[in-house]
Amino acid sequence: MTTDGEVRRGRRRGAGREAKRARAAAGGISQAYIKRKIPYYEILNAEGLEIIEYNADTILEEIGIDFRDDAEALELWRAAGADVQGERVRFPRGLCRKLVQDSAPAIFTQHARNPANSVLIGGDNTVMVPAYGPPFVHDLDKGRRYATIEDFQNFVKLAYMSKSLHHSGGTVCEPVDLPVNKRHFDMIYAHMRYSDKPFMGSVTAPERAEDTVAMARILFGDDFIDPETGQEKTVVVNLINANSPMTFDETMLGAAKVYARANQACVISPFILAGAMSPVTVAGTAAQILAEALAGMAFVQLIRPGAPVVFGTFASSISMQSGAPTFGSPEPAQVMYIAASLARRLGVPFRSGGGLCASKLPDAQAAYESANTLQAAAMAGVNFMLHTAGWLEGGLAMGYEKFMMDADQASMLSVFLGGVDMSENGQAMDALREVGPGNHFLGCAHTQANFESAFWRSEISDNNSFEQWQSEGSLDAAQRANIRWKSALSSYEAPAIDIAVDEALQEYIKVRKAAFADANY
Amino acid sequence: MTTDGEVRRGRRRGAGREAKRARAAAGGISQAYIKRKIPYYEILNAEGLEIIEYNADTILEEIGIDFRDDAEALELWRAAGADVQGERVRFPRGLCRKLVQDSAPAIFTQHARNPANSVLIGGDNTVMVPAYGPPFVHDLDKGRRYATIEDFQNFVKLAYMSKSLHHSGGTVCEPVDLPVNKRHFDMIYAHMRYSDKPFMGSVTAPERAEDTVAMARILFGDDFIDPETGQEKTVVVNLINANSPMTFDETMLGAAKVYARANQACVISPFILAGAMSPVTVAGTAAQILAEALAGMAFVQLIRPGAPVVFGTFASSISMQSGAPTFGSPEPAQVMYIAASLARRLGVPFRSGGGLCASKLPDAQAAYESANTLQAAAMAGVNFMLHTAGWLEGGLAMGYEKFMMDADQASMLSVFLGGVDMSENGQAMDALREVGPGNHFLGCAHTQANFESAFWRSEISDNNSFEQWQSEGSLDAAQRANIRWKSALSSYEAPAIDIAVDEALQEYIKVRKAAFADANY
Repeated sequence: MTTDGEVRRGRRRGAGREAKRARAAAGGISQAYIKRKIPYYEILNAEGLEIIEYNADTILEEIGIDFRDDAEALELWRAAGADVQGERVRFPRGLCRKLVQDSAPAIFTQHARNPANSVLIGGDNTVMVPAYGPPFVHDLDKGRRYATIEDFQNFVKLAYMSKSLHHSGGTVCEPVDLPVNKRHFDMIYAHMRYSDKPFMGSVTAPERAEDTVAMARILFGDDFIDPETGQEKTVVVNLINANSPMTFDETMLGAAKVYARANQACVISPFILAGAMSPVTVAGTAAQILAEALAGMAFVQLIRPGAPVVFGTFASSISMQSGAPTFGSPEPAQVMYIAASLARRLGVPFRSGGGLCASKLPDAQAAYESANTLQAAAMAGVNFMLHTAGWLEGGLAMGYEKFMMDADQASMLSVFLGGVDMSENGQAMDALREVGPGNHFLGCAHTQANFESAFWRSEISDNNSFEQWQSEGSLDAAQRANIRWKSALSSYEAPAIDIAVDEALQEYIKVRKAAFADANY
Repeated sequence: MTTDGEVRRGRRRGAGREAKRARAAAGGISQAYIKRKIPYYEILNAEGLEIIEYNADTILEEIGIDFRDDAEALELWRAAGADVQGERVRFPRGLCRKLVQDSAPAIFTQHARNPANSVLIGGDNTVMVPAYGPPFVHDLDKGRRYATIEDFQNFVKLAYMSKSLHHSGGTVCEPVDLPVNKRHFDMIYAHMRYSDKPFMGSVTAPERAEDTVAMARILFGDDFIDPETGQEKTVVVNLINANSPMTFDETMLGAAKVYARANQACVISPFILAGAMSPVTVAGTAAQILAEALAGMAFVQLIRPGAPVVFGTFASSISMQSGAPTFGSPEPAQVMYIAASLARRLGVPFRSGGGLCASKLPDAQAAYESANTLQAAAMAGVNFMLHTAGWLEGGLAMGYEKFMMDADQASMLSVFLGGVDMSENGQAMDALREVGPGNHFLGCAHTQANFESAFWRSEISDNNSFEQWQSEGSLDAAQRANIRWKSALSSYEAPAIDIAVDEALQEYIKVRKAAFADANY
């Protein structure tokens, strides 16, 4: 909890730092997200994508999707023209696509409480988001352990201070030191209080989604999210996983309904370990993903036409020997490329990606696997890149060092996605004429003029000579990252917040927590 | 040196292992190189590429290229219509391009002494080649130290045994325990004797290139490389670096002339630390690279029309603060994408890529940086991927563990480049129909039928549970790679070689070494 003094100090200092941070991002240009200036990579041609789309429609028409324990959902589908048998819903060809294309926005703004940090989700934009969901945390000092609310707050702070992460994320780790039925209050409050970047809402029960919306109304004000007028701005993005294969359960449907009715965004994400929850092939998995995403996004449009949806996918493959999920491997990258193309053809934003890995440590395995997924996600055109930073151990652990290293890679990708400068200055013919054969460019006028903006630099990598590196302690990348996260946390200052708003949030939490039977827990 | 007994044993066992190895590669399909089945990534459109091409021609026409200490080269250029002032050669617009396009092959075969290991260089093919040039080696046990001929032989053996490396490379490390003027004999012999994959020749002096060709004639037979008839097959690929900016020196020109006259392949490679040896921008660096590569490849065509050439580039950026080269960063990746597109438009094979990094250790930095370059090289369409495995410390060190980890990544990329199976089996609609909502695919008929070929698996990554990983010693990726290279070397068996050929090679080396003034060194 912060004192008034802290809040006021944070407001003053925070504003200056914020401006500086914004200027520093992306080579001096204020940018709360990445505006892509390079082409997408299309791994399949139109004919291949049409086959996948046809097969998805066949899945929807012949096999169908289960909507479990939700009579309202079944009634809505029946009214929309679907064939409902028990909980199985079968869809006339093209119905889901039509529902999505008729009303889902191709691009939407997720507002942050600091307007400079609002993000555009969809189109040619990329938003980098921390990892989501790990019950454990890991660092070099204490190893692996269960996550706490302090860890949660730490990752919110680290994401807030990161130049390359555009979002505070959601369940940056699972604070298992707090009771399951009430921890969402502390998680949402941490995002609201310790960051002013956009964040994600609770989806683990419909009433927790309602708490999220209620707290967002306090934070942003009733005029911002006004259920009376329907002029509701989108301030939370929410992860609605399909229960693959081809199933949505009542928890996810319940949360989706709450968010859709408040015009908050739903990321409909088939969660797939290919070979177990989908066929053992890329094309088969892609068709299933499209079918599930179409059914989920269309359902949101039935609840509230125009509510923002994101085509999500999380696909890994498994070891056929052990059943363990594997990351950084070729088949999930191919699935991601195809899904991104399908989302563009459908005209909705796309979520995938991230720094996925199976490693237990911030070692070379973690880095190879994460880089492979980050690269593919960037090339594919992911709009909402969940799990960008921190992932270890197949998502079971959030790593402090890993977080810093992945955020560094996200910074690299932001420059890559910014494209090639083909201006006269970029072509540099003057430099070539000035320097000529056999000389060097370090001192020429063009180099001097472009010195500040020249070349991305890692904040983690050591590029010095072996001897200098040795004289500085022969640290590896994880050890350097360890120094950086500690240094960042020690210099953290909270962004300013209106004291009345903060008090109202705390009061809401106090009242709501007291309403639980285990109030004294 | 091997005994006859060893040779005979090697021949017998080697043949069986070779066949098994070939079958195992690329999912059971014998394949000595990768046949790409996915599209290239084009970062610039045609208009952007035309600007680079126009600027390269302007560099060639207005600024020119220095050909140093080589009167023959200057005379050839004068005769070809270039403007020669001192050592500066200026080229009429389009001259170099015309010379290259008139006679340089778009694709050529590099023959290996084992025909099953011959590679196609160019077109849609990718050949993965070990790192080249490091004077140091590194492993976890002994740290960093100067390389020896034993290290050299070890890396030849490891590349020979690798399923994912298609080539024995060249200077896999610099055996500094041998005298500079004679070590090339031992290096070439190691490639010839301890591997039967294709390899690279010596370029550090014209007479060493002549030794390479002479030894290749012994290995392959006079009918294979016949200077009388001119029916010479290409059996060595040779790295001819430009002395950037815009300079070729007599050493490289001399080696290029020897190889070109014997119809051996020259990789003309501008070696660029952008910001020092080229402008500080991507488009400026790309234009310079194209100009240098065009001049070098055209020179080879003047020496012998039709001699195979490869458009090479090695471009890194530098830290503008320290001048140190940096790797895995966005600008060199952009340069590589552009250069690959330019090579395709020109119609010649392209060399770049590899697992480049600045790290001193096989740590997360090494892996992020290497994966970034490997991914970009694969997406760009590199044909001859030098430095695929082993690079540490900006190329100063060859790492044993790094070699195994990079080779593992090369295996991953071979599957990725193999494309998406869009057959009926790949589409897997039967599996989807059989399993249906809420069930799992592990036991279905389609999964069982595809079990063997399903999903690439890393040989280095650990995907097991935290508890199992812990019970197995909590090893990181480098420690697992350490076990693997030792195990590989301990099971190494030399490929068979004709005893008479081996004796002739050794005799050639003995006679030639004796001719040096410091014969007793």
